Amino acid sequence: MEHAEFKKYIDQNKDRFLSELFELLRIPSISSDSTKKAEINKAAEYLKLKFEEAGVDKAEICETAGNPIVYAERIIDSALPTILVYGHYDVQPVDPIELWKSPPFEPTIRDNKIYARGSADDKGQFYAHLKAFDTMSKLENLYCNVKFMIEGEEEVGSENLGIFVGENKEKLAADVILISDTSMLSMEHPSITTGLKGLSYLEVEVTGPNRDLHSGTFGGAVGNPINILSKMIASLTDENNRITIPGFYDNVVELSDEERIKIASSPFSEKKFKEELEVDALAGEAGYTALEQLGIRPTLDVNGIWGGYTGEGAKTVLPSKAHAKISMRLVPNQNSKEITKLFTDHFRSIAPPQVKVKVTPHHGGEPAVTPIDSLAFKAAENAYIEGWGKKPIPTRDGGSIPIVALFEKELGLNSLLLGLGLDSDGIHSPNESFGINNFLKGIETIILFHKHFALLNK
Amino acid sequence: MEHAEFKKYIDQNKDRFLSELFELLRIPSISSDSTKKAEINKAAEYLKLKFEEAGVDKAEICETAGNPIVYAERIIDSALPTILVYGHYDVQPVDPIELWKSPPFEPTIRDNKIYARGSADDKGQFYAHLKAFDTMSKLENLYCNVKFMIEGEEEVGSENLGIFVGENKEKLAADVILISDTSMLSMEHPSITTGLKGLSYLEVEVTGPNRDLHSGTFGGAVGNPINILSKMIASLTDENNRITIPGFYDNVVELSDEERIKIASSPFSEKKFKEELEVDALAGEAGYTALEQLGIRPTLDVNGIWGGYTGEGAKTVLPSKAHAKISMRLVPNQNSKEITKLFTDHFRSIAPPQVKVKVTPHHGGEPAVTPIDSLAFKAAENAYIEGWGKKPIPTRDGGSIPIVALFEKELGLNSLLLGLGLDSDGIHSPNESFGINNFLKGIETIILFHKHFALLNK
Repeated sequence: MEHAEFKKYIDQNKDRFLSELFELLRIPSISSDSTKKAEINKAAEYLKLKFEEAGVDKAEICETAGNPIVYAERIIDSALPTILVYGHYDVQPVDPIELWKSPPFEPTIRDNKIYARGSADDKGQFYAHLKAFDTMSKLENLYCNVKFMIEGEEEVGSENLGIFVGENKEKLAADVILISDTSMLSMEHPSITTGLKGLSYLEVEVTGPNRDLHSGTFGGAVGNPINILSKMIASLTDENNRITIPGFYDNVVELSDEERIKIASSPFSEKKFKEELEVDALAGEAGYTALEQLGIRPTLDVNGIWGGYTGEGAKTVLPSKAHAKISMRLVPNQNSKEITKLFTDHFRSIAPPQVKVKVTPHHGGEPAVTPIDSLAFKAAENAYIEGWGKKPIPTRDGGSIPIVALFEKELGLNSLLLGLGLDSDGIHSPNESFGINNFLKGIETIILFHKHFALLNK
Repeated sequence: MEHAEFKKYIDQNKDRFLSELFELLRIPSISSDSTKKAEINKAAEYLKLKFEEAGVDKAEICETAGNPIVYAERIIDSALPTILVYGHYDVQPVDPIELWKSPPFEPTIRDNKIYARGSADDKGQFYAHLKAFDTMSKLENLYCNVKFMIEGEEEVGSENLGIFVGENKEKLAADVILISDTSMLSMEHPSITTGLKGLSYLEVEVTGPNRDLHSGTFGGAVGNPINILSKMIASLTDENNRITIPGFYDNVVELSDEERIKIASSPFSEKKFKEELEVDALAGEAGYTALEQLGIRPTLDVNGIWGGYTGEGAKTVLPSKAHAKISMRLVPNQNSKEITKLFTDHFRSIAPPQVKVKVTPHHGGEPAVTPIDSLAFKAAENAYIEGWGKKPIPTRDGGSIPIVALFEKELGLNSLLLGLGLDSDGIHSPNESFGINNFLKGIETIILFHKHFALLNK
């Protein structure tokens, strides 16, 4: 079948495709919010229905100890290659809610973009796969067997997906795992992510006195947990912005000059990057460029901090407790569990005697590198050449999709990260968006991938 | 009149005294909360009524640009000395509300203590003066002329009281200002506060990128305002816990050996202090004892900090902004306005180029020392000797009542700080309390003060 026929079908059905996606985006399936269980289930039920309507052989809601996984498949010919699509229907929280220009769960179109929580991360992106399948299925022109595994706990660590994958290796057998949960450089510079950072995420609680005190009556003599937490956080990086946790860099592989040159050749304007974020200077480890920080150097960020009085006006309190959420992004060869332990031991060791410290790990994930010499990568290149007239640029991404390392370990399968979003989508931020063109062009590109993957596997 | 007759009246009326105080404590007159204006006015109206019932010549609600001041007086004889009682009917906010064992505005008695926001700071304390007057007035045995000035903005800086005092010097003419808004060492060691710290309170906002970012996609290259704020706060004190703001200590007078010996002789157990707060070690400037830190050394405390994601679970955000509320307690010779400027200039100067910094001063106040060779101090000593069988110990307090310095400047009057509370009252904390005995014994002590002040002025 000519590619133009697929394009015609997509064009004729785009309003339906969008309205279906909007219905999904209206469900506030926030996995970190324990009050949203019903919404999580609603999203899973909705997806099952949409898979069935699109023409799968079977669609199932697979219960786990946590949120359900939606599994669907269409096997047309066991001789053909099989593509396993992974995605996640859970989304990030919406705070700070007051910064949203339109409500996060009422998808709104502005400037040809869909504004909604989850629009890019990841509902809009995996739904493009569902609609690519819908298109190929309705036109009775499927190139490959397809399996879908859409989970509901990506934003909280995918713990139960790990168990599910381990227990369903045969069911999930495939030739490649296709994931759209990253971004490309720009619509002019399509790119494919070939490396992902790992993650170690912890929460710390620093307790001083057993109750909030009057800072006048007790200040000076009693250790203030906020002052102390600030000092502890400050000490986690040195004056060169190197992380000071002993052993942290032990397994980090230094870049070769060749790799550095390759990274430097990527179309990236530091000036534009700063302008877009409205900052006068960039940060990061001395001796590395911004692109190197972003792609291949490990980082440490405080994701949240709170303690004492944070309301209107002034309250002279010396608080009992201060808290922070701290995460580290890891690069290949670093191990999330090891780093979590190194952090925990170090953070406890630097606590002064005025306070007690509690360190609680949240989820983590391993870094991953995907090969650029695989059939899947070649098929993706061909898909972009045919659909966009351009060869995609391989890039490293600072984000984490811990499941990629797990797939490799459990299923022996490489993932292909066919990111359809843009860095400016504002995922995890207020006003998250996903371009309508990214969605529609994404559907087209996915179909082309299926075609070229089948061709290369002949 | 024999003192026993006063005691009898107090005993017969204590249920009424307490129920009147409870009614006042039920009014959530939080001055830093702009939604509580009606409650502020309700508290002022209630006080006016109670003054009238107690038998003043006149009671007025004096409007200001902010919250009203309640003024009342009873002039029995211009030849007699006049006592001006100062107090405040506004209270601190109640956060963290979840730590209150009983609701902050439903006064509850446990272990012979009144638990409620404002019970000790300052409703319970100034109401003891109102009921002391009630007692003397009903028994037709007043020793002195009395004026009352009860304001509603002490917890937010007393700005309008300053204007009121400046404009009403004649009306407020008196021989001494009597204030019960501090604490005594213990019921076994009654004490009188002879020095108060000043205050400089600021709020800082650190802005990095123009929006919240995904910490994976942007971390490393983009300055994280929480990490940076932590470093900035950490740098405000050195390894000896000395404040590093240039010029901060310039006007601080070093203690004489004599003064240090006097402070060291105060009944204070560091061990008990630590046990009571459940901390293993105390903090503070190297080279000074805990009592010295508390009483006569300037301090810097972060009273609140917030930024990024602070909800349940994990969110990998690199936030746009981080905030902190920071206050410094000042000692005699330091000037609040000067220190506020030193802090502001310094804080701006240490901001790295990755962030923009906004510094907003909240209220401040000047430190004050009250004389221990005055007639008022002598009268208080005599009152304690007669009522408690003990001479009160003069102490320095880390708290701030900025108005004391103002009274001295504007009215040329010294204040006597007849604190009726205890450090364990938990003012500014959840579960603030005020002992019923502190209240009733306070009423008695106030009457004895009036008696001895009149005697000494003869």
